[in-house]
Amino acid sequence: MNPRELQLAPDANVHAVESAARAFGLWTTRLQGSDGHTAALEIQSHSQWVDPSELATIPGVSRVLGTTSGHPRVDSLKGQQTTIGDAVFGAAPVLIAGPCSVDSPEQVHACAAMARAAGATVLRGGAYKPRTSPYSFDGTGLEGLGWLRDAADAHGLAVVTEVMSERRVDAVAEVADLMQVGSRNMQNFALLDEVGRAAKPVLLKRGVASSVKEWLLSAERLLVAGAPTVVLCERGIRGDDGTTRNLLDLGAVALLKRVHGLNIVVDPSHAIGRRDLIGDLAAAALACGADGLMIEIHPDPASARCDGPQALGDAELERVGALIAADPRSTSVPSR
Amino acid sequence: MNPRELQLAPDANVHAVESAARAFGLWTTRLQGSDGHTAALEIQSHSQWVDPSELATIPGVSRVLGTTSGHPRVDSLKGQQTTIGDAVFGAAPVLIAGPCSVDSPEQVHACAAMARAAGATVLRGGAYKPRTSPYSFDGTGLEGLGWLRDAADAHGLAVVTEVMSERRVDAVAEVADLMQVGSRNMQNFALLDEVGRAAKPVLLKRGVASSVKEWLLSAERLLVAGAPTVVLCERGIRGDDGTTRNLLDLGAVALLKRVHGLNIVVDPSHAIGRRDLIGDLAAAALACGADGLMIEIHPDPASARCDGPQALGDAELERVGALIAADPRSTSVPSR
Amino acid sequence: MNPRELQLAPDANVHAVESAARAFGLWTTRLQGSDGHTAALEIQSHSQWVDPSELATIPGVSRVLGTTSGHPRVDSLKGQQTTIGDAVFGAAPVLIAGPCSVDSPEQVHACAAMARAAGATVLRGGAYKPRTSPYSFDGTGLEGLGWLRDAADAHGLAVVTEVMSERRVDAVAEVADLMQVGSRNMQNFALLDEVGRAAKPVLLKRGVASSVKEWLLSAERLLVAGAPTVVLCERGIRGDDGTTRNLLDLGAVALLKRVHGLNIVVDPSHAIGRRDLIGDLAAAALACGADGLMIEIHPDPASARCDGPQALGDAELERVGALIAADPRSTSVPSR
Amino acid sequence: MNPRELQLAPDANVHAVESAARAFGLWTTRLQGSDGHTAALEIQSHSQWVDPSELATIPGVSRVLGTTSGHPRVDSLKGQQTTIGDAVFGAAPVLIAGPCSVDSPEQVHACAAMARAAGATVLRGGAYKPRTSPYSFDGTGLEGLGWLRDAADAHGLAVVTEVMSERRVDAVAEVADLMQVGSRNMQNFALLDEVGRAAKPVLLKRGVASSVKEWLLSAERLLVAGAPTVVLCERGIRGDDGTTRNLLDLGAVALLKRVHGLNIVVDPSHAIGRRDLIGDLAAAALACGADGLMIEIHPDPASARCDGPQALGDAELERVGALIAADPRSTSVPSR
Repeated sequence: MNPRELQLAPDANVHAVESAARAFGLWTTRLQGSDGHTAALEIQSHSQWVDPSELATIPGVSRVLGTTSGHPRVDSLKGQQTTIGDAVFGAAPVLIAGPCSVDSPEQVHACAAMARAAGATVLRGGAYKPRTSPYSFDGTGLEGLGWLRDAADAHGLAVVTEVMSERRVDAVAEVADLMQVGSRNMQNFALLDEVGRAAKPVLLKRGVASSVKEWLLSAERLLVAGAPTVVLCERGIRGDDGTTRNLLDLGAVALLKRVHGLNIVVDPSHAIGRRDLIGDLAAAALACGADGLMIEIHPDPASARCDGPQALGDAELERVGALIAADPRSTSVPSR
Repeated sequence: MNPRELQLAPDANVHAVESAARAFGLWTTRLQGSDGHTAALEIQSHSQWVDPSELATIPGVSRVLGTTSGHPRVDSLKGQQTTIGDAVFGAAPVLIAGPCSVDSPEQVHACAAMARAAGATVLRGGAYKPRTSPYSFDGTGLEGLGWLRDAADAHGLAVVTEVMSERRVDAVAEVADLMQVGSRNMQNFALLDEVGRAAKPVLLKRGVASSVKEWLLSAERLLVAGAPTVVLCERGIRGDDGTTRNLLDLGAVALLKRVHGLNIVVDPSHAIGRRDLIGDLAAAALACGADGLMIEIHPDPASARCDGPQALGDAELERVGALIAADPRSTSVPSR
Repeated sequence: MNPRELQLAPDANVHAVESAARAFGLWTTRLQGSDGHTAALEIQSHSQWVDPSELATIPGVSRVLGTTSGHPRVDSLKGQQTTIGDAVFGAAPVLIAGPCSVDSPEQVHACAAMARAAGATVLRGGAYKPRTSPYSFDGTGLEGLGWLRDAADAHGLAVVTEVMSERRVDAVAEVADLMQVGSRNMQNFALLDEVGRAAKPVLLKRGVASSVKEWLLSAERLLVAGAPTVVLCERGIRGDDGTTRNLLDLGAVALLKRVHGLNIVVDPSHAIGRRDLIGDLAAAALACGADGLMIEIHPDPASARCDGPQALGDAELERVGALIAADPRSTSVPSR
Repeated sequence: MNPRELQLAPDANVHAVESAARAFGLWTTRLQGSDGHTAALEIQSHSQWVDPSELATIPGVSRVLGTTSGHPRVDSLKGQQTTIGDAVFGAAPVLIAGPCSVDSPEQVHACAAMARAAGATVLRGGAYKPRTSPYSFDGTGLEGLGWLRDAADAHGLAVVTEVMSERRVDAVAEVADLMQVGSRNMQNFALLDEVGRAAKPVLLKRGVASSVKEWLLSAERLLVAGAPTVVLCERGIRGDDGTTRNLLDLGAVALLKRVHGLNIVVDPSHAIGRRDLIGDLAAAALACGADGLMIEIHPDPASARCDGPQALGDAELERVGALIAADPRSTSVPSR
């Protein structure tokens, strides 16, 4: 239950209850009856999470009211880990790397080699690409899926790849260890239902303007439909000022990790879109608890068919890999 | 100069220039003449910064056009450090801590002791408080300024405090080592001019919806008016979804630190507003290069007269202090 | 072509060109070469649209550069009308009314009668409902589609209804005169492709955080896939402050109507979400040129299965109908 | 009191209360105790405003709780009119027109003549201009104030002009009939206090990212400090997509007019920033109840020293004047 209100006993000292609430990290607003008497304190949504039973002990509080989360299955994931091949989300941080789009067997093999060398355990790569313009290159499709799987297998990596159409769910499920739902489809409910039915773990990206609540309800939908688990992926929301591609919301990452206990990774490539700053945001993401990073790479960014300006090359990827390796969580788990 | 356009030679291979631009991390858009011929590539603002002279070497590029920054004095701060007492912004990360509002001599002394013990070198505290409601407590004023100075002196700390009125600039300048301009006043140009005239270093908070460009132009105004230097402070922008108080823009921090070479600190207290997540965002801020943290503390949050729910107590502050101490930049400079 | 830059002749008087640009309603920024000489003026995107050939006549301008729109098929709709039953979008303003969700034959028949009486020519109603929570009522499906068609036929109305799944496109196309793609699916590219293939007119709602450019590119995709035409629908974007449901962007409506010459309707029900203000926003939408209004109604809001708080009853709908009837465009066309 | 919660009687039928709330236009959320029993319905902030005493009559509701507005003086303005010279805000719509900046006696006289001819009763014009860059022209100051007053007097107009500095409040108060506080200073509390002390009516522009609540609390501050009344001015908020300058929030206008009963005008010039669309937004503003329009004009936009691209010329201003003249509220009041 999310606490939303402290009901006051008739003889409560309002100031004293407000003080106690403040000590618990709660922002409150007074609710009054028509007689002007304060009958309750409303708890604002950006307050620290506190167990309702603790709040009930505040002298002067007669009852704590709250809302149900609306996503019981997501809540039941709290504290769990998700294992995909050699990656264990929720244990040591995971490096997911690969090209924006799967362009050719050679390119994706080169990427897999780069990824592996930098410590990645999961290969990303788009065979189906969501493109704002209908005239843009939108992926190599089924053929690309095959190249992706081959490259991953050749280098001992698991595969995450996006599915964009209800009609391609089976094809993608055959290849992917982790099925990605992209940010533009976060509220494509028909797709979520179909992906859930494939009964595979899902990586769910946040919509560019979605609230945390909407995001969790989409995760709930996947679980209801049959997905065994969901890994969330923050990739930046709209609201930037033009000097960066999107606005990375690490507050949401901290919230989902610390308070909700979910597995969440960060995609700094899409968040910032600038090659010179991806490393800094990667470090920030790990520092605030992200369970992994998803990085776009390319053996030769000049020839990338999509998002080349944000693709990292060898040296830059190695630095990101070093961040992961240096994370205290990496060093505290036995090597795999 | 900020590169904005690659003019093409008449016989340029457009695809080849686009590839080369991509390799440099540039997002580009074709500009055509009325004949449909591509005459130039416009460089989008979220591209990696590249020196125009490097871009001029791309085969097929006849000329690189750009814009002046509009803030030459800010640009001249690139790579400089700012020394305020024992704090050296731009060298090792600085811990600024103190109460939201200066409530009493006892409270601010207790805060100063807490701050010092956690490794802070600068004491923050508001004697004049900007309050959305005219009925809220708005500070202890001149008297509070005195308490703040005394407490800082007693514990060997420097003082940063906000000035909100043109008429209080002299009074604040007498007490403060670093004069703070708050986010609501970032574009209060009369105040900026007056604060600049006081010829003291300024901490300039970002407006809740300001672009990086507007922020830098406000810094420029301070410098033009006489301020010797400006330390920027990111404190979260509007755009959150209600579960956090504001949205911390660490992409802007990385940009201002790595590309502009400016001194920038982060205020995670206002950014997130939740005591349970301040530590995570503090860690993230340091990881992406922030020159310091500004943290609200209180010896007894229950009795805080302002923003108590986001005030850290002793144990939490110590953890933030430990983050600073563990930062590689802290350990690489000789102890002071 | 969208003008983006005025290239300057070597001997141009920069100030004079800037003045002339200003007179044309252009906001410009100077672009300089490495020698500091201003070589061009960049035209900012919020400038008035001016034909490039007019700009080319400014003394000192050697050439006008611009971008192609990227949506040639949308551009070719400029000034065209869309006829759906008795509704002619682009001629007199059209009233589209109906329930949020099709709950029962009785309810939708009652709505159709209300709609017809108020002057509506198109009946709206959701048989498939996009719901943020997987546990919410999501529509009566195929059965509801049948009720909707029957009710429309009984009252001489055309039908617009939403399609959410690639697999339901045929079923919806059989019933709908105008196929609706909802805001959450504005960038569901697989769905857009499939809907386009049905070769029926489409009502495309704007995504809650979509730019005008993204919206037009989604319209382009529908046209490329086979849709004969697209009517746009503005329904409010995110960015409100909590006192209204969404933020209605009438600037975009004016832009798309006056500058792009497209058919665009406004959904004030979702935009504001408050029954007491829907009428005011409906009036505003018509005043700035909207080709129609899409209004949620219910014979008994208390029993509505979805969005009851924003449903209009009889009297309120009549007032909206009166606004349409009083619009100068309504009175200037022969009665149908 | 703003209703925020319906407390339920122990034996209440929750569904029935929810239905009744829906019929009243309320969006509600269930609040439960630790026993899972629904004890209250929280009323969401984007619900229709309903008198708490009406809600108390719903069967099953034991009590209605709410919040005080926090701005009692603003509330007391409900339904009042503000008379400034020949303008009566709250009666017939008022046309305020004039240049962005007062550049010369000739220019402001020409503007005053244009304004008067188009039906304006108030002349606007900036003698002190807030400029993002410290290097931009920032007004002709005291001298400009004199020109403005002369021009207004010569044409029988009242004067509204912006004050940006606490130190210029007296000088501006001497000249202005209506003192303007600009959007960048909406939360410059020192300025608000000083302007209030001048005891003249104030035009308060909304901050570019301010909530309605914050705006009203700034108005409250002016009233507390001594201002006899406040006219609000919506001028667009941040959140646009680049094709328009700002995003005009007419939902807020309707809310403040219909629900709060305040005087509010709209500045479409700054909102949209495009000369080709200002007329459309002006019409929309009037249609949704705005008490007036504030329009930037210039006899020769090419020579304007500030914001020329959005200045209207003679013919365009006349069309705006005609909109005002045709407004039913204009024709229903006796000519002055």
